[in-house]
Amino acid sequence: KINGDRLWDSLMEMAKIGPGVAGGNNRQTLTDEDGEGRALFQKWCEEAGCTMGLDQMGNMFAMRAGTDPEALPVYVGSHLDTQPTGGKYDGVLGVLAGLELIRSLNDMNIKTKHPIVATNFTNEEGTRYAPAMLSSGVFAGVHTQDWAYDREDAEGKKFGDELKRIGWRGEEETGARKMHAFFELHIEQGPILEAEGKDIGVVTHGQGLSWTQVTITGKDAHTGSTPMPMRRNAGLAMARILEEVDAIAWSHAPHAVGAAGHIDVYPNSRNVIPGKVVFTVDFRSPELDVITDMENRLREKGTGIAETMGVEIEFEKVGGFDPVAFDEGCVTAVRNAAERLGYSHLDIISGAGHDACWINRIAPTAMVMCPCVDGLSHNEAEEISKDWAEAGANVLFHAVVETAEI
Amino acid sequence: KINGDRLWDSLMEMAKIGPGVAGGNNRQTLTDEDGEGRALFQKWCEEAGCTMGLDQMGNMFAMRAGTDPEALPVYVGSHLDTQPTGGKYDGVLGVLAGLELIRSLNDMNIKTKHPIVATNFTNEEGTRYAPAMLSSGVFAGVHTQDWAYDREDAEGKKFGDELKRIGWRGEEETGARKMHAFFELHIEQGPILEAEGKDIGVVTHGQGLSWTQVTITGKDAHTGSTPMPMRRNAGLAMARILEEVDAIAWSHAPHAVGAAGHIDVYPNSRNVIPGKVVFTVDFRSPELDVITDMENRLREKGTGIAETMGVEIEFEKVGGFDPVAFDEGCVTAVRNAAERLGYSHLDIISGAGHDACWINRIAPTAMVMCPCVDGLSHNEAEEISKDWAEAGANVLFHAVVETAEI
Ligand SMILES: NC(=O)NCCC(=O)O
Ligand SMILES: NC(=O)NCCC(=O)O
Repeated sequence: KINGDRLWDSLMEMAKIGPGVAGGNNRQTLTDEDGEGRALFQKWCEEAGCTMGLDQMGNMFAMRAGTDPEALPVYVGSHLDTQPTGGKYDGVLGVLAGLELIRSLNDMNIKTKHPIVATNFTNEEGTRYAPAMLSSGVFAGVHTQDWAYDREDAEGKKFGDELKRIGWRGEEETGARKMHAFFELHIEQGPILEAEGKDIGVVTHGQGLSWTQVTITGKDAHTGSTPMPMRRNAGLAMARILEEVDAIAWSHAPHAVGAAGHIDVYPNSRNVIPGKVVFTVDFRSPELDVITDMENRLREKGTGIAETMGVEIEFEKVGGFDPVAFDEGCVTAVRNAAERLGYSHLDIISGAGHDACWINRIAPTAMVMCPCVDGLSHNEAEEISKDWAEAGANVLFHAVVETAEI
Repeated sequence: KINGDRLWDSLMEMAKIGPGVAGGNNRQTLTDEDGEGRALFQKWCEEAGCTMGLDQMGNMFAMRAGTDPEALPVYVGSHLDTQPTGGKYDGVLGVLAGLELIRSLNDMNIKTKHPIVATNFTNEEGTRYAPAMLSSGVFAGVHTQDWAYDREDAEGKKFGDELKRIGWRGEEETGARKMHAFFELHIEQGPILEAEGKDIGVVTHGQGLSWTQVTITGKDAHTGSTPMPMRRNAGLAMARILEEVDAIAWSHAPHAVGAAGHIDVYPNSRNVIPGKVVFTVDFRSPELDVITDMENRLREKGTGIAETMGVEIEFEKVGGFDPVAFDEGCVTAVRNAAERLGYSHLDIISGAGHDACWINRIAPTAMVMCPCVDGLSHNEAEEISKDWAEAGANVLFHAVVETAEI
């Protein structure tokens, strides 16, 4: 078993970097705080005897050597970046559990045939730069690196420039590494495990995602002196579309969810009828047909509302991935580990997207989940117990070591 | 008659300060650009032989002496601040027409019994600091100066500090000056005069305004892994309330308007269900009962929606004024001037709020309006013809000079 106290201490230590305003974290990707978090992770990895690799997307790979020079490494990890008002565990647990597993192998003086690599993927959250899981996506060949470098944040700063600015743009070609397998431990971010009283989620599938950015163009005009019939209120058109987004998601419930988390109104002045609104609709489902149906209905309803209201509307898909089925062998390794260690477990579908979803395309992949309090995540109040973290890390440890072969 | 070319040239010169992105202006109150605009106005006024007064709210008073030392001055003016994406004429026309009228009196070597004071009121627009017409409101005793100084912009910068920072916080006690009368020329900002083919609007009344800031608190949560029934989506609650705002305003049309121009969503991340939304509802009507009814129904409907959705809601009135009836004598002076000069004219109700609405409480007041293209204002594309500006300034000139007595 891994050292649960040490894992917890490292989580608390990392959480000191980029503190939030309500007990969580704001360590968004490619900020100075992201750089500090990376430096701390690198220091810990080197202290554990690992060699750090850094690719051109800023993905970090801390390698513990194996005994067979020919054997491909087993990768294990997640992401250190957070939401603007994020929790201390989302992503971080998976990265630091990878490190803890190496520290425990050192303690036990166990050598594995395959090297083991603790990994931190850049910009998983996708808040500052859409889409989410950007760098594991480039690693897996889903996006080109040039396209990723050109992504802009709200202030127009480019991903490639900001990565360089914080000093974490490496030399290594992204995706050049080959993986024997990939494992990711993550908090569930949903309520199922806690409700069912299970220690471990054996993640068999991931639901698919679709992000559509909607731009509505009406006409800026005075809120006082513009008669009601002359208004082209982009904000009101948005309101009507948000209501449809909710109805569309409910029509497929419980096999779908939908909402808009990002909304920008222009010029955002109390006495100006909004002339422009940009917002992003997030639809998810484990079924591809359902996602396609929701996307189509959004475009159809949105276009209808816009026509009726005399405003312009544009739709742009800014992120998405199809539903994922993880590798049977790896999933079995996770389930067997939970069984062997005596943890209660449940097969589940991940509601969130993860780096594992992209890596699954290029290497056998599986995920381990642990519960989180009230299913709450993407909130500073995100919470897990030390026991849950420890159980998850132990299952990860056994699945990885079994795959890396002693 | 005034010199239309000179007036137009001054308008174009002022528009060079704080240019917008689409041909208009961004010269918001208490920015460096506001300071530059003030300096230019002061220079012009001093060149025209005026003495500049500056009060503790930054209101500027350029006085042309009268012949009777006992006679109270006739004030004429408006505001130089603009919306973030504002036009070149909203407010500015009224200030520069006041200056032009003094320049013309100088040209004609006409002396008036009462002094004439060209005035620039601070923060009429209310975008950076709510409420609108803040400094004419303090002047008229509607708000205390301490309260005004404490107003904060979106970055938490206080009005009093920013006024000092740009160097335009004067010594003179605000509101100490007594006015014989006040006249304001303004573009209509609505479509009526153009549609009716009239040169001049004789403003008999101003419609009332109510700004209610609504804060909805739900719960930040993951857009993917949070099941639909567990969501407390503040953004969706807002959408439903925006639909009600529209319905409430329409229920009183054409005697009311309503919309929300200001909307802030938190944490504004694509994959976080909005945990908090703050927006401002702007309701207007020439009838006080209608305003009260709309405010009440907003609170009632909003509370109902919030209860149904399990979110918290708070309402705060952040601005407002009752419908205004301008001074009969001053209004008659405006109507007579238009008549005498042979301009077609129409009695109208102002759809927007103006400094004149507050000054009307402490001095006989009236307004002159000229048409604007397509009724469009609070938009960089705001446009007027030189002829319209000239006609408005001529009517203003005659009404003011008649009141100031030759
Ligand atoms: N796990 C997680 O929160 N990932 C961010 C991408 C997503 O929105 O699912
Ligand atoms: N005239 C004008 O646009 N004033 C701003 C206050 C208002 O919103 O009516």
